[in-house]
Amino acid sequence: MRRHVSGVCRKIKRERKHHMAWVEQKNVAYSDFEKIFNPARIAVVGVPADKGIGFGSLIFKALQSMKYEGRIYPVNPRGGSFNNFKVYKSIDEIPETIDLAIIVVASPLVPKTLEACRLKGAAGAEIISAGFKETGTTEGYALEDQIKKIAQKGIRVIGPNCFGIYCPKSGLTMAPGPDLSRQSGPVGFLAQSGGMSIDFAQMGKWMGIRFSKMVSFGNGADLRETELLEYLGNDPETSVIAMYIEGVENGRKFFNTLRDVATRKPVIVYKGGLSDSGNRAVTSHTASMGGSRIIWNSLLDQCNAVQVHGLAEMANASLAFSLLPLRSYKGLTVVGGGGALGVSACDTAEAFGLELPSLEHEIVEEILSVLPRPGSSATNPIDAANPFVSPKALKSALLSAAKDRRVNIQILVQLLYHFKSIAASDGTQKLRDIITPPAQMADAIRDVVEITGKPVILVLPNLKKDLEFMEIEEITREARAAFVDRAIPVFDTLNDALRAISHVTSYYEKSIMRSGKRI
Amino acid sequence: MRRHVSGVCRKIKRERKHHMAWVEQKNVAYSDFEKIFNPARIAVVGVPADKGIGFGSLIFKALQSMKYEGRIYPVNPRGGSFNNFKVYKSIDEIPETIDLAIIVVASPLVPKTLEACRLKGAAGAEIISAGFKETGTTEGYALEDQIKKIAQKGIRVIGPNCFGIYCPKSGLTMAPGPDLSRQSGPVGFLAQSGGMSIDFAQMGKWMGIRFSKMVSFGNGADLRETELLEYLGNDPETSVIAMYIEGVENGRKFFNTLRDVATRKPVIVYKGGLSDSGNRAVTSHTASMGGSRIIWNSLLDQCNAVQVHGLAEMANASLAFSLLPLRSYKGLTVVGGGGALGVSACDTAEAFGLELPSLEHEIVEEILSVLPRPGSSATNPIDAANPFVSPKALKSALLSAAKDRRVNIQILVQLLYHFKSIAASDGTQKLRDIITPPAQMADAIRDVVEITGKPVILVLPNLKKDLEFMEIEEITREARAAFVDRAIPVFDTLNDALRAISHVTSYYEKSIMRSGKRI
Repeated sequence: MRRHVSGVCRKIKRERKHHMAWVEQKNVAYSDFEKIFNPARIAVVGVPADKGIGFGSLIFKALQSMKYEGRIYPVNPRGGSFNNFKVYKSIDEIPETIDLAIIVVASPLVPKTLEACRLKGAAGAEIISAGFKETGTTEGYALEDQIKKIAQKGIRVIGPNCFGIYCPKSGLTMAPGPDLSRQSGPVGFLAQSGGMSIDFAQMGKWMGIRFSKMVSFGNGADLRETELLEYLGNDPETSVIAMYIEGVENGRKFFNTLRDVATRKPVIVYKGGLSDSGNRAVTSHTASMGGSRIIWNSLLDQCNAVQVHGLAEMANASLAFSLLPLRSYKGLTVVGGGGALGVSACDTAEAFGLELPSLEHEIVEEILSVLPRPGSSATNPIDAANPFVSPKALKSALLSAAKDRRVNIQILVQLLYHFKSIAASDGTQKLRDIITPPAQMADAIRDVVEITGKPVILVLPNLKKDLEFMEIEEITREARAAFVDRAIPVFDTLNDALRAISHVTSYYEKSIMRSGKRI
Repeated sequence: MRRHVSGVCRKIKRERKHHMAWVEQKNVAYSDFEKIFNPARIAVVGVPADKGIGFGSLIFKALQSMKYEGRIYPVNPRGGSFNNFKVYKSIDEIPETIDLAIIVVASPLVPKTLEACRLKGAAGAEIISAGFKETGTTEGYALEDQIKKIAQKGIRVIGPNCFGIYCPKSGLTMAPGPDLSRQSGPVGFLAQSGGMSIDFAQMGKWMGIRFSKMVSFGNGADLRETELLEYLGNDPETSVIAMYIEGVENGRKFFNTLRDVATRKPVIVYKGGLSDSGNRAVTSHTASMGGSRIIWNSLLDQCNAVQVHGLAEMANASLAFSLLPLRSYKGLTVVGGGGALGVSACDTAEAFGLELPSLEHEIVEEILSVLPRPGSSATNPIDAANPFVSPKALKSALLSAAKDRRVNIQILVQLLYHFKSIAASDGTQKLRDIITPPAQMADAIRDVVEITGKPVILVLPNLKKDLEFMEIEEITREARAAFVDRAIPVFDTLNDALRAISHVTSYYEKSIMRSGKRI
């Protein structure tokens, strides 16, 4: 552990130095970014005059619901009031300068609006409105060109055709995103797609992935993948970067930046549109060029980017990189869950380049002495025979297994849903009376991590999703929250857990290989 | 559609003829199976004398909870009563013959008990008890040999070290399995693993997979994979077979049977233990030999078995084979869900050998005329821009898309969880007031299937699984149930849906190729 901690300190120091140098060099741009992510004054241009649902009202209410602490100025030419706020008839009417504008007006009105925001001193504008390049029409292209020109005069643009920014620290949120977490964390995310962004933000909330900054930039008329990646790469609040890309504007620049950033922090890349029809879908979605699968795979590999193939895989990898110390986790144990699950764990681990070492004889005996018999086995996977094993026994088994030098990480599988069947068999028992309180189990596991210095991961499936079994879902979620609170990553399935571990291991090993030293 | 229906009729006729011939040939054995799956009298040997939880009490209560209609006789040498039933001190004491015995006594007592059951006229016995070959001890092997010898004298044995049989028709259930479905259906399942069986049965309940018979046979001292596969292959109540195998006893016999059965019905095979450590885990789980990955893959392919690599994939494939007419589904549409989801659909479809044909121009225009604009696109994937699209508009879009000849099946993606954010933005709205009632949506989709003759599949993810959002989970489950009730398969993710469709397509195409005709 010691070596690991001092490694982290060295890394943070180096990171800070790097960051300061970068800020000095790009002073003006950096302060723009600061204002955009942490604005003190926001104008929401295009709040509806009536009560209809629209993105303008959604984003306004979302900012309120997130308890954004700055001032919000709703704007609509008709004036009046919205949600008890005075509505300004124009941007000029706003009594002070603004840091950020959120623009939700019809596309033909966007350029004029953007120019007014620039004159009002805004460092940036999110253009949520659609109806630009992605329509494929001459009008759409022309409007987008106008936006680019205004941006060049000195206002940074996010969008158009996007959901905007989510920044937990300032309370800035996407539309819709009224219920995202206000807890900041290490993960920075950028994507063209708003849907992908909001989905990821929502998953992160209950999975325990905490974000520093998230940007959905849609068509990317101004700010896009490369510059944002460079920013997050230099952002001291971000230590893991994830991105969903449909296309890049300047391949050479992007890959140079990616290669550079990935030497300092993991960059998880989900590239959409690598198939023929996917490429076509990309064009109608954000008007990007998709690019070839072989080229992308090979370039991402050369950059030591962590390539994933879906939202769930990206979320699981982000969680693992957030919570696991950066090391190699080749050797692992799987504890609990039953025989077939153990067999499947072995097969899946091998497919991901990981392994379950056969534990030393004395360790096996030690573990067996605390588990129910017959039915248990402990060569690894450790089959705990039934779901009634106490936190004390599990803790003891995990402590023993960690003694084996080939074990780098341990996976505990808890099948809470089995308790429901047991409670149902005996009509008198209530579910909560027979399930170990999640906090108690989570405490025991946290102890194991602290004592052994080897991470433990929890796998918590729920295969009993009938409408009448809502209680078991509730308890499963409580258990997840208890583990997440203790910084123990939780996954739905063994497959998810093993794949995430393999991403961390593979990034770490390639980093060492390339740098010739521990990072 | 016509051709399909008459094809099914021909298939059923052929199936019946085949079945009758088989029954005639194996008359005695078949009536044994009938008694085992549909017993009129069961002895549960090893019910606890006290109130402790154990498999004996679990299975007894589970049978009651499932409303098994036959008579149950609990047995324990101490006598007394259990759950208001008279406990018989021995099997001999039971006042009539029995059809099936469920044996839960300690392993050294099993042979004597089994022999008593045989003498009492039982056609079969489930031996739930562990402590046999799987322990790897001389005693374990000796005990298992004794069981084999008694079985040869004329009682069929399921187990030992198993969870037994689940048969919805008779109410026979596994331990624990007090809350499984009593609805019968087309899927037969067999596995060594009890854990895998109970998990699959429980998933099937809410997924809409209905079972004919399910057998977990553990160590398989007597009845095992080959004979059970032959039985299910000839069972008129079973039209889809799924199996989880750790090892087979006689490879040649097994593969001959598999090849034969797979010409008549799809056989979904999940082979566990194909990795080195998985093979080791198999040995300590059910004392089987795992076998090599290459050999298994190639033999399964030769037999046209549907190979899957996990429980979830097996369940999804079982659902698809249960509910989709057997055809090729190479061309598909994806409707709803947003741009990035559509891109991901294309990429995933291609990976599974499927495709989203670019729809004809007139059809695109027809679809766009009913969808919200701007933001929607309809080349396929059909991006419906937001989650508020009405059942009427969706129905109309699906009817239009089905006109394209290259479309064989349609996938509708419903992101119900987005409504939560919208309701949260506007504090006054209740979730149930803004979500289309699931039954209404399901009716519209069923109409589409009936009118077009092309199946529609629903993808219903929930990415908002916070503890405080239980209501959205409840509504999602209600929606699933509404679609399942209308025989429309529902999957959690697009990936699951596409993989399941590809299994059906690939089985169908190989079947035609091999038989030279439609099956």
